[in-house]
Amino acid sequence: MTDDMETNFRGASVPEGIKYNADGLVPAIAQQYDSGEVLMMAWMNEKSIAETLTTGHVCYWSRSRSKFWRKGESSGQVQILKDFLWDCDGDTLLLMVDQKGVACHTGRRSCFYNAFRDGNPAIIADIVISPDELYGK
Amino acid sequence: MTDDMETNFRGASVPEGIKYNADGLVPAIAQQYDSGEVLMMAWMNEKSIAETLTTGHVCYWSRSRSKFWRKGESSGQVQILKDFLWDCDGDTLLLMVDQKGVACHTGRRSCFYNAFRDGNPAIIADIVISPDELYGK
Repeated sequence: MTDDMETNFRGASVPEGIKYNADGLVPAIAQQYDSGEVLMMAWMNEKSIAETLTTGHVCYWSRSRSKFWRKGESSGQVQILKDFLWDCDGDTLLLMVDQKGVACHTGRRSCFYNAFRDGNPAIIADIVISPDELYGK
Repeated sequence: MTDDMETNFRGASVPEGIKYNADGLVPAIAQQYDSGEVLMMAWMNEKSIAETLTTGHVCYWSRSRSKFWRKGESSGQVQILKDFLWDCDGDTLLLMVDQKGVACHTGRRSCFYNAFRDGNPAIIADIVISPDELYGK
């Protein structure tokens, strides 16, 4: 993949056929475009999709805060959109992104750091940036 | 990654701290464990997680049919579980799988085959196995 992937979605409108849930939201998976690492899953509404396609910076909808969640706005850990995909049923999005720094609020690269090892729950990824540093405490 | 990844979750119980939604479900992303390709997103409940960890074959919960969806049961396109991860908030699962054949009911390898090209919606993946062949028509 090349750096000019953004030309793929430049000028695109929110795709028809996306199935939003009762709250007007659709789940969006963020995947690092070159390494393939799955970074996180969050939710988008029609307006956050439109903003993301227009700006090329990923904007989710925060269910807990009921407002736009411009990824990296407070932490600086932005996601540059590289490609925008959706699935056969139109009920899930896959965002190919270039994640600056870390995706997870815990300071880990990916939010998916819990797994089983030898049958027991284990944390399988290290903290890369301390949350204090991320959120300026 | 090796073929004995299954030893990681052998004997594991459904992890505590998973946050199910009002319907008792949690979204599960399936990713091909070696190539990193994101294949699909579906839903699991506690019992389908338990079955998946016990059998090593991925079992979702079908929201449309309100029953267990043992992936590949009718199509033969099973998903062998290689690793089982969950995120920082416990509200999304990431299944590292070995997808036999194709994940998508359309006969494509991945369900994420819709994207924009030159700003217009486009299908970016070919059909590998015809749905007629998959479902024995």
